[in-house]
Amino acid sequence: MGGDASLLLFLSDMSVFASSSFVPSRQHRLRDLMAKRRLDFLLVSNPKNIFYLTGFRGSTGIAVLGLEQAVLFVDPRYTLQAREQSAGVDVHEVRRPLLSAAGQWLIRRRTRNVGYDDAHLTCSGFSELQRRVPKATLRASGGLVEDLRLVKDSGEIDCIRQAGQITAAVFSEVRGTLRPGLRESDLAAEIEYRMRLHGAEGAAFETIVASGERSAWPHARASSKLLKEDELVIFDLGAILQGYAADMTRTVFLGRPSRRVERLYAAVLMAQEQAIKAVRPATACGKVDFTARRALSGRALDRYFTHSTGHGVGLDIHEKPRLARKEETLLEPGCVVSVEPGVYIEGLGGVRIEDTVLVTEIGAEVLTPLSKDDWIIS
Amino acid sequence: MGGDASLLLFLSDMSVFASSSFVPSRQHRLRDLMAKRRLDFLLVSNPKNIFYLTGFRGSTGIAVLGLEQAVLFVDPRYTLQAREQSAGVDVHEVRRPLLSAAGQWLIRRRTRNVGYDDAHLTCSGFSELQRRVPKATLRASGGLVEDLRLVKDSGEIDCIRQAGQITAAVFSEVRGTLRPGLRESDLAAEIEYRMRLHGAEGAAFETIVASGERSAWPHARASSKLLKEDELVIFDLGAILQGYAADMTRTVFLGRPSRRVERLYAAVLMAQEQAIKAVRPATACGKVDFTARRALSGRALDRYFTHSTGHGVGLDIHEKPRLARKEETLLEPGCVVSVEPGVYIEGLGGVRIEDTVLVTEIGAEVLTPLSKDDWIIS
Repeated sequence: MGGDASLLLFLSDMSVFASSSFVPSRQHRLRDLMAKRRLDFLLVSNPKNIFYLTGFRGSTGIAVLGLEQAVLFVDPRYTLQAREQSAGVDVHEVRRPLLSAAGQWLIRRRTRNVGYDDAHLTCSGFSELQRRVPKATLRASGGLVEDLRLVKDSGEIDCIRQAGQITAAVFSEVRGTLRPGLRESDLAAEIEYRMRLHGAEGAAFETIVASGERSAWPHARASSKLLKEDELVIFDLGAILQGYAADMTRTVFLGRPSRRVERLYAAVLMAQEQAIKAVRPATACGKVDFTARRALSGRALDRYFTHSTGHGVGLDIHEKPRLARKEETLLEPGCVVSVEPGVYIEGLGGVRIEDTVLVTEIGAEVLTPLSKDDWIIS
Repeated sequence: MGGDASLLLFLSDMSVFASSSFVPSRQHRLRDLMAKRRLDFLLVSNPKNIFYLTGFRGSTGIAVLGLEQAVLFVDPRYTLQAREQSAGVDVHEVRRPLLSAAGQWLIRRRTRNVGYDDAHLTCSGFSELQRRVPKATLRASGGLVEDLRLVKDSGEIDCIRQAGQITAAVFSEVRGTLRPGLRESDLAAEIEYRMRLHGAEGAAFETIVASGERSAWPHARASSKLLKEDELVIFDLGAILQGYAADMTRTVFLGRPSRRVERLYAAVLMAQEQAIKAVRPATACGKVDFTARRALSGRALDRYFTHSTGHGVGLDIHEKPRLARKEETLLEPGCVVSVEPGVYIEGLGGVRIEDTVLVTEIGAEVLTPLSKDDWIIS
């Protein structure tokens, strides 16, 4: 491991402290939102939201946040970890279903309005909860914590920035080794291994390496196919650090591209750059999408652009806001989004170019800083 | 990559064909179950269940299985992939929410009884569906497909056996390199990289490397802590191949263990071996759990055994059946379960030993074949 990697490891250890120190202000912002919506308690079941609001990163837990108290229910496997990682909550170890324990606790508080995350809680989880607190009004409050998460605090931005730097560094290293005969799945393994050596916890999602005709599948996995001469290859990768993801796509061509492929690449790159320029505070998300789509339609390529332009990036690799048609959410400083137009032509292949971008006070900062011009590998 | 790895890659490419060829018999078994429960249609939302019943491995889709027809709804990103991978279903490409498209399709069939997976469908997904098919009776049918998945067919067993062999081979290689000064997270990265080189798709779950006091956290992640002399280290790892997982834990000691640590290890090993001996057809899952617990109580260690003895392993790393107290499900040939007693003593550390085990016609076959005697690394 080189010097840079050690530095990153050091930085990433620092941000553990940073992260839990942000918990009180996040709980405070949540309580403001709860008061506005007249919720006495919010039951949080999504592990990412529990991490955000308490610092606990176990895969199983239920948090209940009240206007004045906060409790985290965990089973005995997680008691020590919860006590070590969490802030601003009382940890309760329970030896029965967590929802049932949370329900019992709520009953004793004679509470009326309890919010739950209807976009995460399953139908059977809801039935369990309802059996326990028959007298409370359970109110669908999905997206409440996600609304808070839309604007990142500086602890979160630090993590995503580092994850973006690792992602860019790893692809830059791997790009130097590309040649026909390499296996897609071995390249994906190499990418994820190097992320770890650079101090990441791993890959935020399964790395995509899709070559030749497979590059026309926008969500192909890496397969046992070998790279060949004269093929497009899409790499979609992102490191995860302290729970925070980055997301980046680069497309390369092995050999000498045809004029048609060159035009395709130039069109997608122009669309992506114009879309990034459109990213700034108070711009509607739909306008960024429209910008990318309009650039492609100028080349009659918009019908091959079969997905939306981007999505929020943070604890989830896909989160709010969506950069999609007619999406009216306004960007704010602290939003982090992917910008990733692509065109996919059956039989020929696909081109997608993506960066993770932070909305700043005056515009946008690219968090996955890596050239998009060195795409021809001959 | 050595010769063995190439062989495994070859085998794993073979099982792609094997897997889709099992789809018709899985759909047939499901239809028998549906007829018994008087369901006209089953709406399947869990991607693992969709893969099991159709062969499609995309992350987003909705399958609707009727007694005579089957449809898979996907968005345009997944159309090509769905057509290539699936069997026994008509692929419908839709450009609006998949649940809404599935609901519309169901209305036209004037159906009465539609099952849905209440353990997977979220409250908000259910509301969406209910809006679309107000006249149908939506029946909570969670666990129906999981019940089928409890007994693996030979295509599935092949995948888990290969995943188990890769898992054992990788740990055996990494064990040879263990010494004080290595970083937990680097070891986890090394393990997952080697899984890929052996032909696995990756890790079935985040590899646990927990040393020293951290080994007393049953679900610790790998951290930036360095291994030290005279520490217990728990490794919990599992490769995934064609979507199927294996699960294995080994504990080692770096240096010369105290008598207390030696007794701890011997007790857990005995409990695990006795529990594996208890695995056979027609045995209740609770009896396997009881066997492990009784062995530990003979050493007054049962109070440190804070989780259940095991769980089903397959498309999910945790699935039916649970090997837990009072669990009455009977094991059948084709069930695959983990057997993993552990003891966790705050301040001292933990010992867990785990294998993935197949229930055969006459007993059990260990699918993660690797010695448990070489645990002292000095």
